[in-house]
Amino acid sequence: MSERGKLKLGALIHGVGGSISGWRHPDIQADASVSIEFYTEQARKAEEGKFDLLFIADGLYINEKSIPHFLNRFEPLTLLSALAAVTTRIGLVGTVSTSYSEPFTVARQFASLDHISHGRGGWNLVTTPLENTALNYNKTIEEHPDHAKRYRIASEYIQVTKGLWDSWEDDAFIRDKESGKFFEPSKMHQLNHKGEFFSVQGPLNIARSKQGRPVIFQAGSSEDGKNLAAKDADAIFTGHPTLEEAQKFYQDVKNRASAFGRNPDDIVILPGIAPIIGATDEAAENKYQELANLVSVEKALDYLGRYFDHHDFTQYDVDAPFPDLGDIGKNSFRSTTDRIKQEAKEKHLTLRQVALNESTPRTPFIGTPEKVADLMQQWFEEKGADGFIFASSVPNALNDFVLHVVPILQQRGIYRTEYEADTLRGNLGLPFPENRYAKEKIKQ
Amino acid sequence: MSERGKLKLGALIHGVGGSISGWRHPDIQADASVSIEFYTEQARKAEEGKFDLLFIADGLYINEKSIPHFLNRFEPLTLLSALAAVTTRIGLVGTVSTSYSEPFTVARQFASLDHISHGRGGWNLVTTPLENTALNYNKTIEEHPDHAKRYRIASEYIQVTKGLWDSWEDDAFIRDKESGKFFEPSKMHQLNHKGEFFSVQGPLNIARSKQGRPVIFQAGSSEDGKNLAAKDADAIFTGHPTLEEAQKFYQDVKNRASAFGRNPDDIVILPGIAPIIGATDEAAENKYQELANLVSVEKALDYLGRYFDHHDFTQYDVDAPFPDLGDIGKNSFRSTTDRIKQEAKEKHLTLRQVALNESTPRTPFIGTPEKVADLMQQWFEEKGADGFIFASSVPNALNDFVLHVVPILQQRGIYRTEYEADTLRGNLGLPFPENRYAKEKIKQ
Repeated sequence: MSERGKLKLGALIHGVGGSISGWRHPDIQADASVSIEFYTEQARKAEEGKFDLLFIADGLYINEKSIPHFLNRFEPLTLLSALAAVTTRIGLVGTVSTSYSEPFTVARQFASLDHISHGRGGWNLVTTPLENTALNYNKTIEEHPDHAKRYRIASEYIQVTKGLWDSWEDDAFIRDKESGKFFEPSKMHQLNHKGEFFSVQGPLNIARSKQGRPVIFQAGSSEDGKNLAAKDADAIFTGHPTLEEAQKFYQDVKNRASAFGRNPDDIVILPGIAPIIGATDEAAENKYQELANLVSVEKALDYLGRYFDHHDFTQYDVDAPFPDLGDIGKNSFRSTTDRIKQEAKEKHLTLRQVALNESTPRTPFIGTPEKVADLMQQWFEEKGADGFIFASSVPNALNDFVLHVVPILQQRGIYRTEYEADTLRGNLGLPFPENRYAKEKIKQ
Repeated sequence: MSERGKLKLGALIHGVGGSISGWRHPDIQADASVSIEFYTEQARKAEEGKFDLLFIADGLYINEKSIPHFLNRFEPLTLLSALAAVTTRIGLVGTVSTSYSEPFTVARQFASLDHISHGRGGWNLVTTPLENTALNYNKTIEEHPDHAKRYRIASEYIQVTKGLWDSWEDDAFIRDKESGKFFEPSKMHQLNHKGEFFSVQGPLNIARSKQGRPVIFQAGSSEDGKNLAAKDADAIFTGHPTLEEAQKFYQDVKNRASAFGRNPDDIVILPGIAPIIGATDEAAENKYQELANLVSVEKALDYLGRYFDHHDFTQYDVDAPFPDLGDIGKNSFRSTTDRIKQEAKEKHLTLRQVALNESTPRTPFIGTPEKVADLMQQWFEEKGADGFIFASSVPNALNDFVLHVVPILQQRGIYRTEYEADTLRGNLGLPFPENRYAKEKIKQ
């Protein structure tokens, strides 16, 4: 067993799911993305499985081509606040973009969630890659900040929010009825931030929470993303097709955290996985195929075309070998299109097979509960992950996982049988962040 | 009984309360403003009393002079979402400013609350009078929009949010698993708003709710505020010291609504009241005095000074008659300072009495349950109000009101004994707003 403590688990709950056609499965609730009953049931199931946290992803732009879940779904902060009221121990993490929001409002809403849940709140900071988002926020596409600028904004934004969350020292509110002293003025602090993008005076109109401040997640894997995470995040939501890639990323981020003067244990790395579990490996494989078959060939070809400069794949025989495309696709998603071409050639795949596989990506985590548990244990012990964010891809996936995989992980001693702490930060094994002003006073 | 339907009730829940020193009362929970248990209990109590709605006020700037509740409180949207999960019928209305937020985000968060609560959401639109708020939102005090500009922004903002809430026609989501059709593309609409202050493409990434869209409250009483409300709001939260003033305001707003081509019954006018109930009128009066006495004379003098250009009242004998101030106070809150001077003269009040009265404003609604019910009935029947927003000023005020005043109103047949509808809009007796695009199609 690793010395790093036990494996951590998050549950990405996302209504009808992250695929084009998963909603068509007979056992999927077709309006799950706007069903509070669905989210409540999933949240309680994850808490039954002693998961560290729920994770709610987000986006700010849709069009008629968007996948069903994106078209009509809850907003994360409101949803998580509602889920805080129907759970008691599980963490509540949601995505908010730093490119299209105000630090004072975001710091406040997450702090409020953190108080409502008694220290279980978390923020997944994203920078919004989709340039069309600008059109919903009084900007033109040209005004959407480029990658480097988005990360400069995010980096400053995170300083502002952390500063606002320290507006009040932990013992600032005295509430002494006899003397009439509600708070100690010397423990209330104005931030007075003036930077390149933001100018925020403070103080925030809410105290620090039981866990000091909300846990910060980061989900970008670019150089800028990794640096931002290594410097300022408590956890990373990432994704890797193989253990080798996961290990490389893991070591890279931990090294960067050390370089920033942090204890590398203080940043938790959680790759996303979407296990499909069956009584036998074959039964699990059948579940995957059933899912893949829900996608119509037309939709799959259309989806595939997006990687290849919107190439029209309907001109080919879908049951003939994958066509020779020459240079098509070299200018957009090159690493993806190169991989697709190579796999098709090596495995002698038809166009239909390629299109269906791409629209329902395979995961190594398909098989019996033992096989999935083995793989998770290996990734954890061989330092590819501190834990995982579980995403459902087939119906009842979370239920199956809690029922069949969680007990194996518990028996092997690598996963909790009861919550260790009553805050998200505590369960993730992260240190309590001291208030910056209190810390300065101690130093003096 | 009025032909307008029954009296409507809202409950303003605001932690330790809206006064300087109410929190010092031995029966007040001193951390109520950040206690989800307190809000949950109050919400359930109001629902037990068949109240139409909970009302959560808000502000975006504090300093060391702010009243205790303002310093450290929940943010409305997160709080109301949590309360949605622990209530079933009561409406959930919260304040958000149009001067320091983005229409796409606000439309989405209220729509999400509206879905989470199955059609019980409401937005109290304010424009933020406090210029220092600019300092928390990347602006200088000089950049805080003036009154007229704030209302121009608000007026456009409301068009944008109403437009975004109509992004999807009510039957847009088909979710037909057989055909694979998740939605009907002709029932998805881009807003493409381009105005003086906002440019928002849409569509919003959430459907219309059970009540069509969140109920819109407005709380400003200026000319601009009344026009905005009469044109676009579903309800008004107002406040008047006398029935005569309430009647004047009521008639004025209803007339303005008619002038905008609306049915005046489609805008509900709810003055705020803070009843203090006792077994006898004297017992109720004693409760008021007990509350007023919690304010230290120093704090009361300081509070009074704010109306009089920050005049220093500590220079006078507090138990001597109220001093002759000449022109002091004529340039800031003139109507208030004129009234204070006149009352002090007429009633021969000392400085102490004036200061304590002003820091704990009196209300006509002090007395036995019958007296309070009589007054409410009179205001309702004589068209000063369609109902009231109840605010607690003394401990257990809501409990006493539900226990002692609600049954009287019910016996008199002017207040519901059971909810008529399962949405806030339905309970308020407001019509379901048709989707604009569906309406156009019917016309064609």
